[in-house]
Amino acid sequence: MNIRPVKSSDYYVISPLINDWWGGRNMSDMLPKLFFDHFTHTSFIAEKENHIVGFLIGFLSQTHINEAYIHFVGVHPVYRKHKIGNQLYESFFNVVKQNGRNIVRCVTSPVNKGSIAYHSKMGFEIEKGDKEIEGVSVNSDYDGPNQDRILFVKYLD
Amino acid sequence: MNIRPVKSSDYYVISPLINDWWGGRNMSDMLPKLFFDHFTHTSFIAEKENHIVGFLIGFLSQTHINEAYIHFVGVHPVYRKHKIGNQLYESFFNVVKQNGRNIVRCVTSPVNKGSIAYHSKMGFEIEKGDKEIEGVSVNSDYDGPNQDRILFVKYLD
Repeated sequence: MNIRPVKSSDYYVISPLINDWWGGRNMSDMLPKLFFDHFTHTSFIAEKENHIVGFLIGFLSQTHINEAYIHFVGVHPVYRKHKIGNQLYESFFNVVKQNGRNIVRCVTSPVNKGSIAYHSKMGFEIEKGDKEIEGVSVNSDYDGPNQDRILFVKYLD
Repeated sequence: MNIRPVKSSDYYVISPLINDWWGGRNMSDMLPKLFFDHFTHTSFIAEKENHIVGFLIGFLSQTHINEAYIHFVGVHPVYRKHKIGNQLYESFFNVVKQNGRNIVRCVTSPVNKGSIAYHSKMGFEIEKGDKEIEGVSVNSDYDGPNQDRILFVKYLD
């Protein structure tokens, strides 16, 4: 498997794929082309035999100069449990450190149990919210009405 | 009228407003909270008597070190033609120049005649696309299938 930086034309391959990878949920609106044009140093593609099997879209915060943010990560359903996510996250952590930063943040929905377990395993901590759902601290209405979110933070060595 | 930088909590005011401002089109998915958290130095709010009447969300490209990008601009329908947009764009141009950059890009849909006229008046040029619609150069399928876009660029002095 090969990990490489995102390029602009990857948008046209990934955008139609992601609704499939998310089991039909309409996710592609959340990933406009701008991320493939302007955040290519901090976004990565995983390829196997010249096919895209995963991607991570992240950026350096322009407000918090010690932080970086992961906006979107996807792995082809057939290639899950192959450590593709790990390699994408590690590539991102490395470029964040190269930029002299040591805090990585991301956000997920309480329904997304797989994501919660995965981020915990990857060393992310859950930030204290205003309520608990099934033992997990959650921020109510974080992304708008009824859009609760779990906030993850990881401190890099 | 007052122009100030965006802050995180503005998200909760603006997100419910924008579908109204766009006449019912579902626009709020295009503006996730991350823009209000991580691009506050290049994003601005226009206020009148403590009410938000306009906003501009932009960022510095992390790929093209001489460029900045405007993602989203909105003005309350009642306050259009009050030069609120101009002041938001000028605030953005100033911060781009302060960061030593001189190219600003943004994108609009061919149906959005008001936006095309407005950007032309503000000194944006239209980049050459692969076809013309009513005399305007357009990039076919730029944002996905049937999502043609007009690409604007402005060179700052």
